[in-house]
Amino acid sequence: MRIILVGASGDIGQAAFAALTDRHDIITVGRSTGDMQVDISDPAAVASMFHAIGPIDAVVSTAGDVRFLPLAEQTHETFRHGLHQKVMGQINLVLEGRQYVRHGGSFTLTSGILDRDPIVNGTGAALANGALGGFVVGAAIEMPNAQRINVVSPGMLETSAKRYGPWFAGHNPVCAKRVGRAYVKSVEGAQTGQVIKVD
Amino acid sequence: MRIILVGASGDIGQAAFAALTDRHDIITVGRSTGDMQVDISDPAAVASMFHAIGPIDAVVSTAGDVRFLPLAEQTHETFRHGLHQKVMGQINLVLEGRQYVRHGGSFTLTSGILDRDPIVNGTGAALANGALGGFVVGAAIEMPNAQRINVVSPGMLETSAKRYGPWFAGHNPVCAKRVGRAYVKSVEGAQTGQVIKVD
Repeated sequence: MRIILVGASGDIGQAAFAALTDRHDIITVGRSTGDMQVDISDPAAVASMFHAIGPIDAVVSTAGDVRFLPLAEQTHETFRHGLHQKVMGQINLVLEGRQYVRHGGSFTLTSGILDRDPIVNGTGAALANGALGGFVVGAAIEMPNAQRINVVSPGMLETSAKRYGPWFAGHNPVCAKRVGRAYVKSVEGAQTGQVIKVD
Repeated sequence: MRIILVGASGDIGQAAFAALTDRHDIITVGRSTGDMQVDISDPAAVASMFHAIGPIDAVVSTAGDVRFLPLAEQTHETFRHGLHQKVMGQINLVLEGRQYVRHGGSFTLTSGILDRDPIVNGTGAALANGALGGFVVGAAIEMPNAQRINVVSPGMLETSAKRYGPWFAGHNPVCAKRVGRAYVKSVEGAQTGQVIKVD
């Protein structure tokens, strides 16, 4: 398959890339790295990216930024940031990409564990994760052209534990290979409208 | 208790009002009706409302607007509308209200059934509902002053069936009294961080 992977340079993106690259042709996209550079929060930039790449079989997104802050320091703007970057950014990929994905192709987005197992400073992430879960459930029954859509919701990766471990008190780090397989399940499998949890 | 009820004129708002009014002092708020008029998507207007009302025991919100449209007609702007009105509007009530709610008081927000039982045209609602569920799970563990926060997630009310029934194909309408009791549970009970489903 010809697959666009957005957010390829992150820990989750690398796990998805490693799991898919042997069998597929992957075009990597990042904000500042990869085969193409795109800010997914800009719908026009996302549209240009799909136009340049042309027909594809699958879109995988592991991109999106949220603010980690104590709730006492969160504001309208810090919450709006995550909705704009992580939620609407990934939704932009679906809205602009649906005309380029083949019949029966798929979109796989990425949320995270914090809307079911919260941590201090994580309300912005919990908000965005819940939004993405709701979006794929709603969108799956109306996708055009038999396209599928799922969201992978991983716990903190072992490969991220050095940086983020102290924030995720008592969370079990998950193996990057298990996370990678969740993307394989969504891309190569037949499910749709699923929140694929990796705990 | 002294309770602010935002969105009091809607079907869900009326159910909450009917369930709470015998035992509590309720200040009703709406966009164009009620004791006070406020657009909750405007943080400054929400701040002014709380300043005018002063100390309270609970905030109940049954407010928020989303766009019901076929996915094929949904755009960045139609999805953003629901995130701005229904999600950030209700989050504004928490952010601006937390300094006015007494020790041990509560916030009760409202989402809906469509992120677990989707309908055609409902992706904007599913997105907003999921976001609100994630938000209360994340926020509950960091609320100041022992404040609690829950979200009520009702199915389509019997009282709404005349208007919305044809959209909710095969959904079981829920009795307004059962919906009202969910708000009683959140306001008078002791749970926090819960998505209180009324199916």
